[in-house]
Amino acid sequence: MKLAVIYYSKTGQTKEMAEIIAQGMRNVGSEVRVYSVDDSINANYVNECSGIVFGTPTYMATSHWRITQWLMKESGNFSLAGKLGGGFATAHYAQGGSDSAILSMLGMLLVKGMLIYSGGATFGQPFIHHGPVALDAVGNHYEDSKEMFELFGQRFAEKAFELFGK
Amino acid sequence: MKLAVIYYSKTGQTKEMAEIIAQGMRNVGSEVRVYSVDDSINANYVNECSGIVFGTPTYMATSHWRITQWLMKESGNFSLAGKLGGGFATAHYAQGGSDSAILSMLGMLLVKGMLIYSGGATFGQPFIHHGPVALDAVGNHYEDSKEMFELFGQRFAEKAFELFGK
Amino acid sequence: MKLAVIYYSKTGQTKEMAEIIAQGMRNVGSEVRVYSVDDSINANYVNECSGIVFGTPTYMATSHWRITQWLMKESGNFSLAGKLGGGFATAHYAQGGSDSAILSMLGMLLVKGMLIYSGGATFGQPFIHHGPVALDAVGNHYEDSKEMFELFGQRFAEKAFELFGK
Amino acid sequence: MKLAVIYYSKTGQTKEMAEIIAQGMRNVGSEVRVYSVDDSINANYVNECSGIVFGTPTYMATSHWRITQWLMKESGNFSLAGKLGGGFATAHYAQGGSDSAILSMLGMLLVKGMLIYSGGATFGQPFIHHGPVALDAVGNHYEDSKEMFELFGQRFAEKAFELFGK
Repeated sequence: MKLAVIYYSKTGQTKEMAEIIAQGMRNVGSEVRVYSVDDSINANYVNECSGIVFGTPTYMATSHWRITQWLMKESGNFSLAGKLGGGFATAHYAQGGSDSAILSMLGMLLVKGMLIYSGGATFGQPFIHHGPVALDAVGNHYEDSKEMFELFGQRFAEKAFELFGK
Repeated sequence: MKLAVIYYSKTGQTKEMAEIIAQGMRNVGSEVRVYSVDDSINANYVNECSGIVFGTPTYMATSHWRITQWLMKESGNFSLAGKLGGGFATAHYAQGGSDSAILSMLGMLLVKGMLIYSGGATFGQPFIHHGPVALDAVGNHYEDSKEMFELFGQRFAEKAFELFGK
Repeated sequence: MKLAVIYYSKTGQTKEMAEIIAQGMRNVGSEVRVYSVDDSINANYVNECSGIVFGTPTYMATSHWRITQWLMKESGNFSLAGKLGGGFATAHYAQGGSDSAILSMLGMLLVKGMLIYSGGATFGQPFIHHGPVALDAVGNHYEDSKEMFELFGQRFAEKAFELFGK
Repeated sequence: MKLAVIYYSKTGQTKEMAEIIAQGMRNVGSEVRVYSVDDSINANYVNECSGIVFGTPTYMATSHWRITQWLMKESGNFSLAGKLGGGFATAHYAQGGSDSAILSMLGMLLVKGMLIYSGGATFGQPFIHHGPVALDAVGNHYEDSKEMFELFGQRFAEKAFELFGK
């Protein structure tokens, strides 16, 4: 099963978390490619994917304009409808708005006809309400979150497999 | 395939639109039951459903507290995780906040582990970005919207059938 | 008292509504300048303003990436903190997401330290919950809304005057 | 100058943070009363207030239904229009949705005609984008946040004083 993670990263943190989600997906047997929105993204590959997770840094309490721009201008080159969609964000602070950043992307994925999925609170701890979040200015939260990001990738891949098979 | 529509209605309009969505679902062969959050909801039936659409009137530019209360307090009696989830709203005005009302419910459905789906812009006209909306104080919009609500029910049921089969 | 309306427009509709809001502001004695985010915006003028209203077309059920980009990248050249802030949107359909488009901007204005104001439901009809909305694919809604946009400009200017005087 | 903090609390944490915000307001000379939505709230006092901050625990990634119910059903007994309004939330996790909880309340305050204010990023560290957040399951974040809540109360009171005088 093919999956992708598409992100915008400024400092490298969102990129790092994208790679960790991809690792979680691979743990359960998925083929995964990770793309920055500034990469040349392989349309054939993305079109064959069962699911895509989008990632953004949190800016001004929402998703970065560059990921929004990609979804508005560039996503039309890809076939997203019907695929499983998810989101994640990095941020500095708990009060930074990471949840709004994720929801902002998920709302656009709905418009693209995707099936939105986070797992929510259904797998027990850690609850991942709308998507995983890593905070780099709250103690050791950024490092500690990596396990959750990997788990999110795994849960997401298992759901995609359950829905769409190999 | 079993589906449900669960709504809160104050004036009867949200109830009417819930019934129209159910009709759209039945048009494509689904078994559907429509429940107010104030009804005694059959848990066996809901638990066997492949998908559930939630409806709310728009109050203060968001979903009514009663549907939020049901999702927070009462939904634990039902098995929602993994099912297809959708939302709709009624409102008076275009600037009333119906979209925020829908998103507010969809965010909670994510936490319940549902797969969120609206169809978005992928079927052409009418685009149904986050869910259908009917405005009762804008010309003939309320009556004119009924066709869209029926179509939404149909699209939602077809997606549930595609994902989960009979 | 100086006010500004700053917008992004693609088809000209958001620009037209920006001008109508400005007219409403002028009706109650304000000096107003209207800028596209693609204009050379006079920083001296904007910095002297008591309030600024931001406008966007609704794209994928949220604000257009260009207005978000402006707020993230370019707004730092202006002094926005402490000023009155408001928002409006144009859209095609009631279910298009205009309310999310407005809220998305207002959330960023909070981060800039602005005082957010819409008037809400407090002046009686028309209620303008988060900001005025014009729908161009719903009967005569676009034309009919112009009166509301003018009224919004007037209410916004009166509040700015009440708070900050001439 | 009179201010109020109105909250719903289930475990006592939101109540504790409401008291800390009140302390911050008192530090700069305000008279403050703190009410649970389940208290008998003194309408005369609230009506004389220059500003009110609302607080909620984060449930299912949004504000608790009880605060929403109060804003929809009970707030009509009070005169909120024109006052300064703010919000805060407590939550367990960074990915819990505290920001959506705050925004959900702020959207309703706009409908009530309030002036919404958070201070945002304008005072330097700590940035308080939409309102302060305390996480009780992330290291020492809950205790560490108390200083920020007090500072938020202080900033909010200073803005109310600046706008409305003594």
